[in-house]
Amino acid sequence: MKNFISVEDAGHINHLSRIALDYKQNPLSNQSGAGKRIGMLFLNPSLRTRMSTQIAAENLGLKTIIFNASQDGWQLEFNEGAIMNGQTVEHIKDAAPILGNYFDIIGIRIFPTLKDKEQDYKEQVLAAFIKYSGVPVISMESATLHPLQSLADVITISEAMEKIIAKRKLKVVLTWAPHVKALPQCVANSFAEWMSAWDKTDLTIACPEGFDLDKKYSPDAIITHNQNEALENADIVYVKNWSSYNDYGQILNDPSWMLTNKKLEITNNARVMHCLPVRRNVELSDEVLDSKRSLVTNQAANRVWAAQAVISEILKSIK
Amino acid sequence: MKNFISVEDAGHINHLSRIALDYKQNPLSNQSGAGKRIGMLFLNPSLRTRMSTQIAAENLGLKTIIFNASQDGWQLEFNEGAIMNGQTVEHIKDAAPILGNYFDIIGIRIFPTLKDKEQDYKEQVLAAFIKYSGVPVISMESATLHPLQSLADVITISEAMEKIIAKRKLKVVLTWAPHVKALPQCVANSFAEWMSAWDKTDLTIACPEGFDLDKKYSPDAIITHNQNEALENADIVYVKNWSSYNDYGQILNDPSWMLTNKKLEITNNARVMHCLPVRRNVELSDEVLDSKRSLVTNQAANRVWAAQAVISEILKSIK
Amino acid sequence: MKNFISVEDAGHINHLSRIALDYKQNPLSNQSGAGKRIGMLFLNPSLRTRMSTQIAAENLGLKTIIFNASQDGWQLEFNEGAIMNGQTVEHIKDAAPILGNYFDIIGIRIFPTLKDKEQDYKEQVLAAFIKYSGVPVISMESATLHPLQSLADVITISEAMEKIIAKRKLKVVLTWAPHVKALPQCVANSFAEWMSAWDKTDLTIACPEGFDLDKKYSPDAIITHNQNEALENADIVYVKNWSSYNDYGQILNDPSWMLTNKKLEITNNARVMHCLPVRRNVELSDEVLDSKRSLVTNQAANRVWAAQAVISEILKSIK
Repeated sequence: MKNFISVEDAGHINHLSRIALDYKQNPLSNQSGAGKRIGMLFLNPSLRTRMSTQIAAENLGLKTIIFNASQDGWQLEFNEGAIMNGQTVEHIKDAAPILGNYFDIIGIRIFPTLKDKEQDYKEQVLAAFIKYSGVPVISMESATLHPLQSLADVITISEAMEKIIAKRKLKVVLTWAPHVKALPQCVANSFAEWMSAWDKTDLTIACPEGFDLDKKYSPDAIITHNQNEALENADIVYVKNWSSYNDYGQILNDPSWMLTNKKLEITNNARVMHCLPVRRNVELSDEVLDSKRSLVTNQAANRVWAAQAVISEILKSIK
Repeated sequence: MKNFISVEDAGHINHLSRIALDYKQNPLSNQSGAGKRIGMLFLNPSLRTRMSTQIAAENLGLKTIIFNASQDGWQLEFNEGAIMNGQTVEHIKDAAPILGNYFDIIGIRIFPTLKDKEQDYKEQVLAAFIKYSGVPVISMESATLHPLQSLADVITISEAMEKIIAKRKLKVVLTWAPHVKALPQCVANSFAEWMSAWDKTDLTIACPEGFDLDKKYSPDAIITHNQNEALENADIVYVKNWSSYNDYGQILNDPSWMLTNKKLEITNNARVMHCLPVRRNVELSDEVLDSKRSLVTNQAANRVWAAQAVISEILKSIK
Repeated sequence: MKNFISVEDAGHINHLSRIALDYKQNPLSNQSGAGKRIGMLFLNPSLRTRMSTQIAAENLGLKTIIFNASQDGWQLEFNEGAIMNGQTVEHIKDAAPILGNYFDIIGIRIFPTLKDKEQDYKEQVLAAFIKYSGVPVISMESATLHPLQSLADVITISEAMEKIIAKRKLKVVLTWAPHVKALPQCVANSFAEWMSAWDKTDLTIACPEGFDLDKKYSPDAIITHNQNEALENADIVYVKNWSSYNDYGQILNDPSWMLTNKKLEITNNARVMHCLPVRRNVELSDEVLDSKRSLVTNQAANRVWAAQAVISEILKSIK
């Protein structure tokens, strides 16, 4: 593995998931990171991703350095030929090679603007770090994708549905949920992409009109604007808010889309997922989150093993 | 030791103090934390507590992760059944189990509001972390108590007064001091609680009228509003400002309560303590702080050994 | 080495540079820091210095603790006898001894005010930490100097000019560059000081009228206000903006001083240096930075080995 930016970097999903689950049994079994160092660069805040990735790296023997760029007001320039007499203090062409010099692997988190769709979907920050740093780059959530979350989701489904998966494909439903803030599409895009690539699942996406995701992440999914219809016979219900892709960044707070136990009655006794943080009684009701259906804590816990699998695969590509 | 929230968790105080002083002689003598990890969650800023607790944990072989929640605007929800359509981004019921998954021990700092007495004294943050995280919780200063500071204070008194303690009980005076800001009652509450529980000291508390602490922390202490009377024959004078408990959060900047060498003349050649940071020439005069009487640097230095004793006792309760 | 504050602490420059270059070949060859701890105190933001110093310390086996004082609003008092009823929360006399207790070495970054020249050039923060902490102090950029940068610059020149240095002294030109913000004089002062002390170089300083540096850092340098004249036959061109020393803190954004390939034609095929971050097409043109002439990435990479040489020399002075 050279970088970890999208499902295309994952190789065989079941193989990667298996590596992760092996680390869950033996966290310290592989010390191939000894003498190496990962730089974790947060251009936006993080809790679960920061902690789980740091733990994963340390489990492999790596040293970690965290840099919270947002707090230090370190604004990067990305435009070629820019005359830098404004707010940006450093060009990515100058910053990235140095981080590549200090670190063996670089992890980056960068949120979208949710204002300029074209710019966000170009993923210029990740692209520039890959181009200029000279070392492997791991997305710790980018403007449009969140592959470490998606791999943790795959692992969580694999564990919880082990027996069913052995027999048949799962019906997985990604359902939009209400929220009070404008959130990125990245978790939803990424989950759609991974479920589409994974051979164990059939994906249905349910969302209000105007909230369809970019179709490129889920070429074969069933898309519906009827949540009830989608939930029928579902094995997994993945709940997530996202702001509009079409009317870019616009929000909708329609409480009728909140997931409740009542709605889940027509599923196939589905397990419920959410990447956290979750707005209780807005996105999902307490009764769902506090029930045995909920896999949310497992998902967050599995972030460690997902990150550890990814980092160890990348270490193989480093001399 | 299961958690470390108040003096009630300390067990036998002299025993815990002895463990701490042994670490002071041999910092790396116990590596029982190897392969384990402590998460230190700061909902408010910290200097001494953060550094000393991190050093203590590392001395025991633990890995540490620090999370400054205040800087990342990570506002937790604590109310059962809350409809989270406002400022809080994550419910403690969802956050705590994940931290309990990532860490073997969790340390938390949370300051009081100083506006809502009932809420502050309920200590709902600590209670919720203990309830939902499933791992031992250490208070790194809570809304109402600061037990790591108090244990360091006990150690410091034990060292400085070793010969006298062997013969008789000490007269310890906790005296209120002026300040320009509204400070919590936690250091004072906690010191009162530990001095009351410790078999080596008799406690007198001196403060202006209207500044009495909650009596539950010092059932047997002598309370007086006459500082001079309190200081007579004192062996230890502990200086600390706190805002009013009765007229909750109100401050008083009465310079006549500043501790000076002149006032100390009637003591039994007392040693002077303060938990730092101290407002010089407001709480205490320079002449006191710069004299041999002052134990303030010892107190801060002993924070490492106090934390190390607490963490190693907690490690014993973990498989 | 007791402290590392200026070139006066460096001892023999070529010797120190040689130690640094040895670490570049064998980063983990010296573990004399094992069991020791460095506290890195940032009163101002940092990227390269923070990362490179942490890596250097860890390469030597030291543990590191970073404290970003600016983010926690930890305002120190420096005045003797101050009545602390204002904004400052802790006196350096109280803070420094405790840090000296927690750490074997202290690194400090403190920027100038650029408003009060006398105060800035007194370097009272560094002086107070040295006076009160009782442990070695390393400047990670102070109000007036940046010796870790200058040592990295020496190393970079030594590497790039190895063959020429063996035969003759280099003509080094420090040339002022335009900028949109008021920057400290520290990198320029420090570079001037090190080039003056180093036996391999002759220094010329070019800057607009009114931007002369304090002469004490470069007693033997040629000072000119004609950039062209300075560049003639230069082997090394070090580009840097600084705000006025005379009209303290004033800026000048004169684009005619931007360094371009055209201007470099009259040099002796000079290599170009800058400490980063650099404002592209304001201080230097893209064509220079993107050419083989540029040594800027080398400089930043060599920060690790400079810091490692300094820390290991200081470790020799600790029991």
